Amino acid sequence: MSKKDVSSIRILGSGLIGTSIGLALAGRGTSVEMVDSDLKASELAQSLVNSKPSSSPEVVLFALPTSALSAVLNIEYELNPKARFIDIGSVKTKPLLEVSKSKIPSNRFLATHPMAGREVGGAESARADLFEARTWVYSKKDLLGHEVDPEVLEAGLWIIESLGAKAVSMDPKDHDAAVALVSHLPQLISSLLAAQLNEANEQTLSLAGPGLIDTTRIAASDADLWSEIAAMNGSEILPLLEKFSANLSDLMNSLRSELSIKRFIADGNTGRARIPGKHGAKARNYSQLPVVIVDKPGQLASLFEECSKANVNIEDLSIEHSPGQFTGLITLALSASDAQKLESHLKGAGWNVHAPR
Amino acid sequence: MSKKDVSSIRILGSGLIGTSIGLALAGRGTSVEMVDSDLKASELAQSLVNSKPSSSPEVVLFALPTSALSAVLNIEYELNPKARFIDIGSVKTKPLLEVSKSKIPSNRFLATHPMAGREVGGAESARADLFEARTWVYSKKDLLGHEVDPEVLEAGLWIIESLGAKAVSMDPKDHDAAVALVSHLPQLISSLLAAQLNEANEQTLSLAGPGLIDTTRIAASDADLWSEIAAMNGSEILPLLEKFSANLSDLMNSLRSELSIKRFIADGNTGRARIPGKHGAKARNYSQLPVVIVDKPGQLASLFEECSKANVNIEDLSIEHSPGQFTGLITLALSASDAQKLESHLKGAGWNVHAPR
Repeated sequence: MSKKDVSSIRILGSGLIGTSIGLALAGRGTSVEMVDSDLKASELAQSLVNSKPSSSPEVVLFALPTSALSAVLNIEYELNPKARFIDIGSVKTKPLLEVSKSKIPSNRFLATHPMAGREVGGAESARADLFEARTWVYSKKDLLGHEVDPEVLEAGLWIIESLGAKAVSMDPKDHDAAVALVSHLPQLISSLLAAQLNEANEQTLSLAGPGLIDTTRIAASDADLWSEIAAMNGSEILPLLEKFSANLSDLMNSLRSELSIKRFIADGNTGRARIPGKHGAKARNYSQLPVVIVDKPGQLASLFEECSKANVNIEDLSIEHSPGQFTGLITLALSASDAQKLESHLKGAGWNVHAPR
Repeated sequence: MSKKDVSSIRILGSGLIGTSIGLALAGRGTSVEMVDSDLKASELAQSLVNSKPSSSPEVVLFALPTSALSAVLNIEYELNPKARFIDIGSVKTKPLLEVSKSKIPSNRFLATHPMAGREVGGAESARADLFEARTWVYSKKDLLGHEVDPEVLEAGLWIIESLGAKAVSMDPKDHDAAVALVSHLPQLISSLLAAQLNEANEQTLSLAGPGLIDTTRIAASDADLWSEIAAMNGSEILPLLEKFSANLSDLMNSLRSELSIKRFIADGNTGRARIPGKHGAKARNYSQLPVVIVDKPGQLASLFEECSKANVNIEDLSIEHSPGQFTGLITLALSASDAQKLESHLKGAGWNVHAPR
């Protein structure tokens, strides 16, 4: 609340995250300097952000691949010995380890991770609102448990809060274990699952439905980015893969018994139900309202116009098609009361709506 | 084309599939009799379909769990010795095996599988258009390779086409192998993945994002239904799980090498790109257009109203939130030209739209 504004920042890395931070801070009056070894990226970022070189920035922010950190830590410290240092990498113990081996005193470095920015890449996709209402994890301590210098912490929290994110304090090791489970494990499993399709024939693939499409969506993710993350966080990911593998073996041994298989599916049911939904609520608290629409321009607009008239809030939705299909099924997720309200409204307006579930 | 109408049908099983078939055929003038061992379900289905008992139905259709088939095949044959027999189960070799052990001559039985109907259950969710433009697999031959009687095949194709589905001939064993890969494997892997969340703490789960949500969506599926399917098709599923398990072991052994991991992610990239999208097109042919919206009623309506004005066709979309977030990111999938058209239209109308990719 009474945090002092960061008046100048030097951002190393002009990708999506670095440039978005630059844009947002420039908009708040901070003097921002964008730097990148890729000249094309840094030129674009500099023009977007109205970048100004700074002789002694208050903050040096590392927004580059963690593998590139070791090459720049000492240089940046020598250039800016009074600065506060902050990073935003997807894994947190590794950068802290790099810092402990560098000239930067550990208490001058704040390790953070904004949970945002996966969907588009590069400075050209940057936006000032990228972090609004997102969770942004930070660590109050270094790897040895020593507290980060209060003025470094204050600068980091000011940046996080200025960008509209929700600052969440987490131990670096806990963070890496958490993202290994909720992010890195699903990524690797989805990639392995999608890889099973490489030898399938066209006829087999023509039977693919929404289940396969959803489970393999993130298998389209960038291979360079994800191989670095997985390698860096391997020590947290490996035990998870081992447990998954052991469960998979159990399942293979149970495949003749319907009752045994049922236990695996039921365990999946309870695990799935534990994922928090939008606004921190549990996903299972929403009702699903299926609406059949004709697949032509304007249908979605009309449908959401009705939702607007009914004054209900759509929490989530999915569209389902199959190859060659000319009608679509839209499933809207709403609160139970909104679902009932919308169902009767849509029925009254002549829509092909089904009972919420 | 010159197929003779089916004038009367007896449908065993008043769930979603059976009742939807009944509804659609009743609408085309076929006399439909709905039967179910669950009186509540059959009463609802009978009233929906305007069910009429038939003394000698032309077709007897089995729309019940395959595990329930053996108990009814002989009874139905004795009741209706001249009927054509058809089933709609998710696995195809198992019902054919049951028929070969029953009194029904194999050439009087047509094994089929409509690729539809997963999203809601029960007679109350039935709809006449459930199968429109869906793929509906059928087998011209029994397990020994003998041709199905032409009049039985004709009746089956008439039903499939009357319901608006696309009839696709497939060997029963090929079908079971195909659905094992594109449907049963993703289901089991998704269930195993979601089960890994059962021991996670709330803080860990609070970091869950769209990747985890999508990969575990089908882990919420019905455990009774899926344990029966997995057990029935175990012989096709097991080698797939074994291959997945071997790939998983390879990955675990590669986890220290970024370059090795990259190969696994890249294999997932190519596998994912092979899944056909809507209307048989490849999913990779669509452009993704990210639009940031304020999370309040009316925003989606306004957005799709703009899409309608721009006269573009939305092929798919996703909404992304994170806990506590009050803005949302909508990603629209469109053809490349529609994406460009919509981007400039939305920009002109003041929307927070980003470059398509």
